[in-house]
Amino acid sequence: MSVVTDVEQSIRNLRREVAVLHAELPRYGLVVWTAGNVSARVPGHELLVIKPSGVSYDDLTPENMVVCDLEGRVVEGDHAPSSDTEAQAYVYRHLPEVGGVVHTHSPYAVAWAARGEPIPCVTTMCADEFGGEIPVGPFAIIGDDSIGRGIVETLRGSRSPAVLMQNHGVFTVGPTAKSAVKAAVMCEDVARSVHLSRQLGQPIPIEQSSVDALYDRYQNVYGQR
Amino acid sequence: MSVVTDVEQSIRNLRREVAVLHAELPRYGLVVWTAGNVSARVPGHELLVIKPSGVSYDDLTPENMVVCDLEGRVVEGDHAPSSDTEAQAYVYRHLPEVGGVVHTHSPYAVAWAARGEPIPCVTTMCADEFGGEIPVGPFAIIGDDSIGRGIVETLRGSRSPAVLMQNHGVFTVGPTAKSAVKAAVMCEDVARSVHLSRQLGQPIPIEQSSVDALYDRYQNVYGQR
Amino acid sequence: MSVVTDVEQSIRNLRREVAVLHAELPRYGLVVWTAGNVSARVPGHELLVIKPSGVSYDDLTPENMVVCDLEGRVVEGDHAPSSDTEAQAYVYRHLPEVGGVVHTHSPYAVAWAARGEPIPCVTTMCADEFGGEIPVGPFAIIGDDSIGRGIVETLRGSRSPAVLMQNHGVFTVGPTAKSAVKAAVMCEDVARSVHLSRQLGQPIPIEQSSVDALYDRYQNVYGQR
Amino acid sequence: MSVVTDVEQSIRNLRREVAVLHAELPRYGLVVWTAGNVSARVPGHELLVIKPSGVSYDDLTPENMVVCDLEGRVVEGDHAPSSDTEAQAYVYRHLPEVGGVVHTHSPYAVAWAARGEPIPCVTTMCADEFGGEIPVGPFAIIGDDSIGRGIVETLRGSRSPAVLMQNHGVFTVGPTAKSAVKAAVMCEDVARSVHLSRQLGQPIPIEQSSVDALYDRYQNVYGQR
Repeated sequence: MSVVTDVEQSIRNLRREVAVLHAELPRYGLVVWTAGNVSARVPGHELLVIKPSGVSYDDLTPENMVVCDLEGRVVEGDHAPSSDTEAQAYVYRHLPEVGGVVHTHSPYAVAWAARGEPIPCVTTMCADEFGGEIPVGPFAIIGDDSIGRGIVETLRGSRSPAVLMQNHGVFTVGPTAKSAVKAAVMCEDVARSVHLSRQLGQPIPIEQSSVDALYDRYQNVYGQR
Repeated sequence: MSVVTDVEQSIRNLRREVAVLHAELPRYGLVVWTAGNVSARVPGHELLVIKPSGVSYDDLTPENMVVCDLEGRVVEGDHAPSSDTEAQAYVYRHLPEVGGVVHTHSPYAVAWAARGEPIPCVTTMCADEFGGEIPVGPFAIIGDDSIGRGIVETLRGSRSPAVLMQNHGVFTVGPTAKSAVKAAVMCEDVARSVHLSRQLGQPIPIEQSSVDALYDRYQNVYGQR
Repeated sequence: MSVVTDVEQSIRNLRREVAVLHAELPRYGLVVWTAGNVSARVPGHELLVIKPSGVSYDDLTPENMVVCDLEGRVVEGDHAPSSDTEAQAYVYRHLPEVGGVVHTHSPYAVAWAARGEPIPCVTTMCADEFGGEIPVGPFAIIGDDSIGRGIVETLRGSRSPAVLMQNHGVFTVGPTAKSAVKAAVMCEDVARSVHLSRQLGQPIPIEQSSVDALYDRYQNVYGQR
Repeated sequence: MSVVTDVEQSIRNLRREVAVLHAELPRYGLVVWTAGNVSARVPGHELLVIKPSGVSYDDLTPENMVVCDLEGRVVEGDHAPSSDTEAQAYVYRHLPEVGGVVHTHSPYAVAWAARGEPIPCVTTMCADEFGGEIPVGPFAIIGDDSIGRGIVETLRGSRSPAVLMQNHGVFTVGPTAKSAVKAAVMCEDVARSVHLSRQLGQPIPIEQSSVDALYDRYQNVYGQR
């Protein structure tokens, strides 16, 4: 089999995977209407697969996913790609370990983002998944590299796979698209629990050594091998 | 084909579209029981298609939608139209660019409306869709033109397709019924995020120039052409 | 046909109606597990139809509904009736215009009830459905007539079809079981909106004359004739 | 029939029951992704049946449940068991009356847990199910017996079948897995109602004699005999 055929097969699989993963976003209350998306890197190639812009989650199929290069230009597909494609392409270009990116405006996370306030690590779930606080990236608007740069710079200074972009929303990353979706789900859950806790007082901090122990175990022992 | 036949076809299509769009209201938590409705203008005619009054969303069909003239009088249909028909007819009479109107009592939006407080524009989603704060219209009760007038006067002074009527609920408009439904969904999402953010502090304002840039891009670039 | 046959038919219809109406309680988030119930009076007879105690909403059928007399004693059925049967029987004995009763522990309503605080009438929806504030009844525990008496005395002093029993939950009444379910749905919606509004300030009061006008119109004009 | 055959049948039944009960956790909003689990003791044997680690609720079947001994070692099954297995095994070893254990990170309960604050008994539902306040256990992390010990010591000092583990989440117990699931559902409902009530003031306390009367009746009279 030729290399071209392998890429084609890889893209075909990722079209299906990315289309299906979008269903998790409304299921967990992370998005309304069309305001959120999932993408995946095509491994070993300068390509990504992403949601078409402004298309309802009900109408997503493997066929209407869009394949772009890592500058965000359409390579394959009949639709315009998500307006977040350039930001996500920037992430893939600068973080080679990232295989999937998710963007949402999930409500509790946006509440923290609108205040420009990181979510403190006061639950074991947050220590498990994020290894510390969930950080805030800069205010940046679409039109140049500033969103992508803000995501990359913030994530590089943190163990967290999630960043709250100020006044905007959440971007999460992972080795696969599915792991980035998981991080987006966990980010909203943590944002909500800590929000609720803070409404009636101050959550008890968790010592750094416990955060480290929890993070280490969860990354290395949890789940099926 | 005669003009009459074209109108008939147009009404038939809108009956179906308006009936189906109502399913988005409970889906996004914008309504309970029968407390909300969608209408559409019949393009080129002094007619609108609207929900029957007090009928459950489960029981809506193209057939039980009601066709009214722009004074709110029933032209076609076996049911009494929504009690909001007069207000919506007023909107169609005075805002010729409007093709669809939605009314809800979505809970976070009502929370702002009951305080008579506009929703400040502190998220990029709000800038994208509403181009600034979501404004508040006057307190007005059913029985004369005061609700319709309040909606029209408030929307004329704003880029927002949504108005919070004081102590009452939300009215949204758009070039189509679907776009008005989208605005109602986004209005509640913004109302919720900003509510949550304000509960634990003050959201960071977004500069007017950034609001303008976001609004301009979203109105002109987002989605499929 | 004999009188007995008519009663039998009436009971058969109400078994079905009451069983089906229970689905509205979890649908609108008014109950968890088995904590809430619907009952209906058998018109013209000293009988009521009610949910069996502790049975999951998924498992309700016309056949497992329980028929009791208005002292709460089982007349027909293989199951123990809801533990709220005595309170509801008391309501039917003392309020002859009531044809249906609903009991829930819906969360926002319970939040008001636990503080013993009536819900102020600051939305048009509250004026429409409840004609004023939603009142609070006394603290009362199961074992004698005190819950039933508390409901009846509180409702007699109010236009509201809903009462918040202190530290407990909601009881609603109506001419039919369906109208009592509607009141329970609206009660939670109003409880939530006003709760949210109060979290960030003070809702604007609605003048009594407007409350009266809204209530009058909604009771007499809304819906299908 | 041999003793071995009886155990096999018992395990087969519990595999099905435990797999099916997991559906209640997402249904009632107690978990996201894979963050929660149910287990059951195999009656009369030093064995338990529990969820596999990190497997989606959609993918649970009787076959992929894991059977462990009461030290948490896998006895039967192709998957690694829940990472909470050791804590739950500790509970079964030390509380012989317990037949089922549930663990969740339900959001309102976690909000109380993160502040290390017990939930006061200010609703009749809390008195019914928990017989008083819902207590808080110590901060403890995975790796030794400290979570299991914290659960057991806290539950021994209380009538409550639920404990909030500080900064972590909820563990509930019951004579069966289903009763532990019920306690987890009720715990989140009470955590939410009391949270909401406290946001706008102070709930009215319930006298101890009334708490005792409610608890006694609910444990002995409610439901079907």
